[in-house]
Amino acid sequence: MKHPLQPLIDHFSKLPGVGPKSAQRLAFHVLSMPVSDVQSFATVLRHTRENTRYCERCFHITTEQYCDVCTSVKRDNGICCVVAHPRDVMAIERTSSYQGVYHVLGGLLSPLDGMHPQSLRIPELIARVRQAAFREIVLAISPTIEGEATALYLGDVLASYGIRLSKLAYGLPVGADMDYTDELTLQRALMGRTLMENTQ
Amino acid sequence: MKHPLQPLIDHFSKLPGVGPKSAQRLAFHVLSMPVSDVQSFATVLRHTRENTRYCERCFHITTEQYCDVCTSVKRDNGICCVVAHPRDVMAIERTSSYQGVYHVLGGLLSPLDGMHPQSLRIPELIARVRQAAFREIVLAISPTIEGEATALYLGDVLASYGIRLSKLAYGLPVGADMDYTDELTLQRALMGRTLMENTQ
Repeated sequence: MKHPLQPLIDHFSKLPGVGPKSAQRLAFHVLSMPVSDVQSFATVLRHTRENTRYCERCFHITTEQYCDVCTSVKRDNGICCVVAHPRDVMAIERTSSYQGVYHVLGGLLSPLDGMHPQSLRIPELIARVRQAAFREIVLAISPTIEGEATALYLGDVLASYGIRLSKLAYGLPVGADMDYTDELTLQRALMGRTLMENTQ
Repeated sequence: MKHPLQPLIDHFSKLPGVGPKSAQRLAFHVLSMPVSDVQSFATVLRHTRENTRYCERCFHITTEQYCDVCTSVKRDNGICCVVAHPRDVMAIERTSSYQGVYHVLGGLLSPLDGMHPQSLRIPELIARVRQAAFREIVLAISPTIEGEATALYLGDVLASYGIRLSKLAYGLPVGADMDYTDELTLQRALMGRTLMENTQ
């Protein structure tokens, strides 16, 4: 006898980070939700998957041909921020401190996992660099092994176009305890030290 | 500009134990799922909520008037296991070592949280006890403060019906390290010690 909740538990179990226990808990929670909320959830779930695609210019997520950033007249088209994933665009947008456009690579170089330059949107980036008048390209890529390799590769590839290339600053996270910071981060924070405003 | 993923992230955020970061991760995962899987998930979500109700006899979850256990001809109607939640029925069913029927209280006594005997299905349990020919009632209730209070109350209420009342054994969890077991559990394991098979 299959339990009536089992199909829903099975669906929840397939989500990342949701084990059988959590899936059961979520399924029971759904039973306690108002019917209208569940209906709305189900509709949004299906519509989001069906109607979302990648921006044809920057490969961020969108429901149209081009994303909100690419179609905005308020953005500075002279500066392009290169990121690995659409979630990185969302993280930078949350800071409200970047007014340029983006280019989403769709991953990072990792030859062992089959991620070569051709698997990423690097050809598309080069095509944009050739067409657009970028003053600066910001590599906003996580400082992991794959991230460093990707940044290094992009640095080589983009060097010949005479555009200013920059990358995110390394250093102590805001609020971090220096004592608990790993040596590499501390070393980079030291190497990248900046002059305080009122001193020479 | 609202992000196209935001409505789905909002829905995931409302689930228990899902924070904003996990909700975003789940939403991105949905984008990577096959469309047919997402459609099936959405359908199951809505149908489960719309078609699930409580068994009119034991208050377990079901899609019909009575649940699978209550309608089964293989179950022993002379023994009734009283549990707090439908998930407890599922936990006991997974052991495959219980052949009786159930009664789901829908919670535990907790006067401070407004859970009185009338808020639970205790009147319905007494009505069943009066009608059905139960030989034994097993109180399968978690040994928490509220659980103990509920078991005590049920013990009082059911005492006059001349039915054998039992409760789950206390003791060491299988695989537990005695050294790490709390004093109360160890005390109860000692008090409830059982004779070994080949000894007197």
